[in-house]
Amino acid sequence: MILNLAKRRKTVRKFKKEKPPIEKILKSIEAAKEAPSGMNAQPWHFIIIETSERKREIRGLCEEGEKKFYEKMKGKLGEWLQDKGFMWEKPFLSDAPYLLLVFTDVRAPFAVQSTWLTIGYLLLALEEEGLGTVTYTPPNLREIENLLGVPKYYRLQTILPIGYPNDEKPKYERKALEDVISFEKFGKDEF
Amino acid sequence: MILNLAKRRKTVRKFKKEKPPIEKILKSIEAAKEAPSGMNAQPWHFIIIETSERKREIRGLCEEGEKKFYEKMKGKLGEWLQDKGFMWEKPFLSDAPYLLLVFTDVRAPFAVQSTWLTIGYLLLALEEEGLGTVTYTPPNLREIENLLGVPKYYRLQTILPIGYPNDEKPKYERKALEDVISFEKFGKDEF
Repeated sequence: MILNLAKRRKTVRKFKKEKPPIEKILKSIEAAKEAPSGMNAQPWHFIIIETSERKREIRGLCEEGEKKFYEKMKGKLGEWLQDKGFMWEKPFLSDAPYLLLVFTDVRAPFAVQSTWLTIGYLLLALEEEGLGTVTYTPPNLREIENLLGVPKYYRLQTILPIGYPNDEKPKYERKALEDVISFEKFGKDEF
Repeated sequence: MILNLAKRRKTVRKFKKEKPPIEKILKSIEAAKEAPSGMNAQPWHFIIIETSERKREIRGLCEEGEKKFYEKMKGKLGEWLQDKGFMWEKPFLSDAPYLLLVFTDVRAPFAVQSTWLTIGYLLLALEEEGLGTVTYTPPNLREIENLLGVPKYYRLQTILPIGYPNDEKPKYERKALEDVISFEKFGKDEF
């Protein structure tokens, strides 16, 4: 069942206009917040954005940051982004019915690790609800944090645009099981 | 369904002697490796440990590291550990039928974040298989990496002891939903 959900889930950057009921998102966060965390600090905080105005502000800030980032980026990541057709425009930030921003309190032990573990729960829960998303992290975190009045110890981890999927792009292929597992020591020879 | 699994799952540090079939672990990793990752780099690697000898070696190294850590630790984490009855001994590292070590290739973008997202998938998949675990990260990562011949770009993220649960400790309480969500901006006043 988890295996089926995990296999079915793919990255979604395009959404239907129809707005899903907020209960689906709340239920997904209810599952996510059950995740374990260092010292049980539960360092995560979630902001749900529904208004067009706020989405437009966030998209504007992110795209400004992306433009600067794209101007100076080089190497593998740059090639990969170009190859995949990515650019500085992030229409999903205003087109998705919801944005869900995930923050972590960096004072907690293993704050980033715990929060991304939670995001793993969240993605599976959203998939089960029939909702699509992508983990988008802008290059200019502080500007978004300032816009939303985030306390100084909280760092934005990701922005999840959420809605009913309308993205024909297939799921990227995953490595074979034998390529990611070894036994007793690092290396593939004992699989 | 995800919500039920997430609520049911708790940290398990004590295990039954009976060894679960390895297929349950492989199936859980099969789900975990479907997780998204930065640039689809899939930076994770999993090492499964089954032999008593290897488990003993790992436990020995971890406990040496823990002893040093406990000697010098202070403040909140120290108090919390003492309060919860934690100490440098980690019997689950040799008592659990399996150890599953999770590594990340730090050269990949968002390597740590992607790998902990995967660990989120993994924990839910293990729970579904009826297996218990805890995300244990020793203070002396490099020594474990050296023991297992891990390439220099891979960093140990966590050691999961895995088996059938035999731990009477209850789940730690989680915050209420309204304490981790806000709307439109940071703060609880609009919930």
